[in-house]
Amino acid sequence: MVIEMDKAALTAFLARDFAEVAEDFAITRVDMDVLEVRLNVAARHLRPGGTVSGPSMFALADVAMYLAILARLGPVALAVTTNCSIDFMRKPEAGRALIAQARVLKLGRVLAVGDVIIRSDGVEAPVARAGLTYSIPPAGR
Amino acid sequence: MVIEMDKAALTAFLARDFAEVAEDFAITRVDMDVLEVRLNVAARHLRPGGTVSGPSMFALADVAMYLAILARLGPVALAVTTNCSIDFMRKPEAGRALIAQARVLKLGRVLAVGDVIIRSDGVEAPVARAGLTYSIPPAGR
Amino acid sequence: MVIEMDKAALTAFLARDFAEVAEDFAITRVDMDVLEVRLNVAARHLRPGGTVSGPSMFALADVAMYLAILARLGPVALAVTTNCSIDFMRKPEAGRALIAQARVLKLGRVLAVGDVIIRSDGVEAPVARAGLTYSIPPAGR
Amino acid sequence: MVIEMDKAALTAFLARDFAEVAEDFAITRVDMDVLEVRLNVAARHLRPGGTVSGPSMFALADVAMYLAILARLGPVALAVTTNCSIDFMRKPEAGRALIAQARVLKLGRVLAVGDVIIRSDGVEAPVARAGLTYSIPPAGR
Repeated sequence: MVIEMDKAALTAFLARDFAEVAEDFAITRVDMDVLEVRLNVAARHLRPGGTVSGPSMFALADVAMYLAILARLGPVALAVTTNCSIDFMRKPEAGRALIAQARVLKLGRVLAVGDVIIRSDGVEAPVARAGLTYSIPPAGR
Repeated sequence: MVIEMDKAALTAFLARDFAEVAEDFAITRVDMDVLEVRLNVAARHLRPGGTVSGPSMFALADVAMYLAILARLGPVALAVTTNCSIDFMRKPEAGRALIAQARVLKLGRVLAVGDVIIRSDGVEAPVARAGLTYSIPPAGR
Repeated sequence: MVIEMDKAALTAFLARDFAEVAEDFAITRVDMDVLEVRLNVAARHLRPGGTVSGPSMFALADVAMYLAILARLGPVALAVTTNCSIDFMRKPEAGRALIAQARVLKLGRVLAVGDVIIRSDGVEAPVARAGLTYSIPPAGR
Repeated sequence: MVIEMDKAALTAFLARDFAEVAEDFAITRVDMDVLEVRLNVAARHLRPGGTVSGPSMFALADVAMYLAILARLGPVALAVTTNCSIDFMRKPEAGRALIAQARVLKLGRVLAVGDVIIRSDGVEAPVARAGLTYSIPPAGR
């Protein structure tokens, strides 16, 4: 297995097919070990109190794993999230971007499975972790 | 255990403390069996293709369970989501609201646990299901 | 969709194909709403302190959902568990059987999804809940 | 935070407090990065076909994370599993031990969270992964 789509190709894909959210995310690393995405935190991602909302963290984990699968399958893929189990462990640090690191643990014929760790930029202790499963339609195999 | 906050009280709470998302949601039923929330689907909730996005469904499940806990604990509560495991089972029907039904399965001293079923309005087959856990801080007990 | 295997057929299947665990379980209800399995608690299911162990509850949830899928697909099925998210909410009552109620929420071409509630026999407050996903191999469709 | 109980102390704890399952498991590594446990596969762990059963893998993940928490909290701890979300990704290799590697991601006042990867001994591709949450009773803090 190799990387079919690199950082530039994935960024272009995101801008074209997910235009409405593309500016939220920056893809900062793509290799066989990890795909890294940064959430550029804006007011619309925040809950009262100034911390990033749960749905925004869910969206970050989901996009990171989606892109990690796409990086391996190429642009024909249309993987669909079937399960996400996410643990929220600490409050994100106010005023910092969130960084998600996704790794693919299985890329099967019909299912892909991986996990994601989310951290506040520059902070070691993780904010959240998630395990995600995607269904890969026949056209994407 | 009784209902400490009814539909009107929860709706007022949502409008005051979650002003930025309050208009997305309508609380349509509050009793000991179930708390029901409707997502008024708007363009910002959609993915390419016109179906409601995963993060929007996560947000709906999260708000429904949060309100179901609040209904029992009263307005002092500040429950924090610690885990959500969500299964996406079918595409939502285009052009229909989503309805979440939350039930509280445990309301303990430090943890509350429940589950949520999400359906397209008027369709029996569920779109998604989630199990959620919340941590209840000392002030909320 | 109909019930392809009833209580007698599922019990015979369990005795033949899962002989080593069949005596742990009794199938007590099979219909389109719910499949109910009883765990006949024995010493080997207990943790120190006399409560049923987590792995024994996991096994009960898994067998209940497996049988609920089999009831609909018939004996050709060889569904494989791909995900289980289980919440342990209360200690089981000592000296009581555990009752699992499984419902199938989706039975698709490649994935089946459902959830399970486990209670101590005769006690309303649930001990555990689980959401489970199974992969259905081509031969089982 | 430091390691309060090393490999020898944890092994003695397991033999004394979990005598009925202690012989199934061997603790092979204990440090701040990872706690590693080996499941010595025996007939009672197998499903028809000779692969390790789901409940046996659940038990392995649970014991590995429990010991990883205990290693940090010391022997007073009585952590209780509150959630486990486990993905079964590949069949274990027949005739090989299973190795679980647990890492603690959060050790809070009331909750501990971590994840576990399970592999067949000597095989890189993981068999299963799990995220687990434990409740830590006041006595254990």
